[in-house]
Amino acid sequence: MEVLDGPCSIARSLSVLGERWTFLVLREALGGSTRFAQFRDALGVAPDVLSARLAKLVEYGVMKKVSYRDPGSRTRAAYELTPAGRELQVVLAALQEWGDVHLPWPQGPNIERRVAGNGPVVRVVFMDEEGHQVDPTDVVAVPMAAASAPVGG
Amino acid sequence: MEVLDGPCSIARSLSVLGERWTFLVLREALGGSTRFAQFRDALGVAPDVLSARLAKLVEYGVMKKVSYRDPGSRTRAAYELTPAGRELQVVLAALQEWGDVHLPWPQGPNIERRVAGNGPVVRVVFMDEEGHQVDPTDVVAVPMAAASAPVGG
Repeated sequence: MEVLDGPCSIARSLSVLGERWTFLVLREALGGSTRFAQFRDALGVAPDVLSARLAKLVEYGVMKKVSYRDPGSRTRAAYELTPAGRELQVVLAALQEWGDVHLPWPQGPNIERRVAGNGPVVRVVFMDEEGHQVDPTDVVAVPMAAASAPVGG
Repeated sequence: MEVLDGPCSIARSLSVLGERWTFLVLREALGGSTRFAQFRDALGVAPDVLSARLAKLVEYGVMKKVSYRDPGSRTRAAYELTPAGRELQVVLAALQEWGDVHLPWPQGPNIERRVAGNGPVVRVVFMDEEGHQVDPTDVVAVPMAAASAPVGG
């Protein structure tokens, strides 16, 4: 399967993201890491694997490469999330919530997601067009060509 | 990194799910596939890889192994999603929506998610405790030990 090949957006997304290290790099990036050494030290990932994952994320617009220079040091590359990359927080939060419930850590969850500024706790849910939460068991995937009725409000 | 090792639920979930074929197996399962041959034919995945992915999903309670028997044939194994497995629809839907926007297919999305019975279209969103949708850019991950204020209603 080639990257970006095929109509399924899940498959296309996984062409960029479908690998454990990539998601963990994104976890670190959402936590504020930008430097190669930060990702490497936090994850214990082999440098060549980390380089390859960062390059793919840059190639597909999830991260962008920027330069920084510490005093007395040479210029180095750092990696920042793009707006598209930041939107992946929804995917990571959904993974996290599933793990909190179905693969729980004995001491309980280690993080929660809140509205910035110590606001309320947030969760990932399905919501319909009128703002009502929908139970996942009520959600079905419908092929677009088979959507016979017009999409009403 | 070992399966289930560490406090991060994202990492634990990826110990079971962090691989492209696993997510695509789940996509097919959510679409109704249960038989080995259905997964194999839909995905074009090598049988040994598919066997390993299904075994891991069964081991961690995402799918369960059941038996079926066609007339005149021997009994064979099939794979059904557990309730925990069905809850992964939220993760796959979040991946799909991200791909629809950031890695779009030229002909547009090929599926949409609706409330069963041709109900309204649904999306994956962050929601706070009072049922209000929250913009992903307003959401922050907070270490639980650092959550100093009591969690109010």
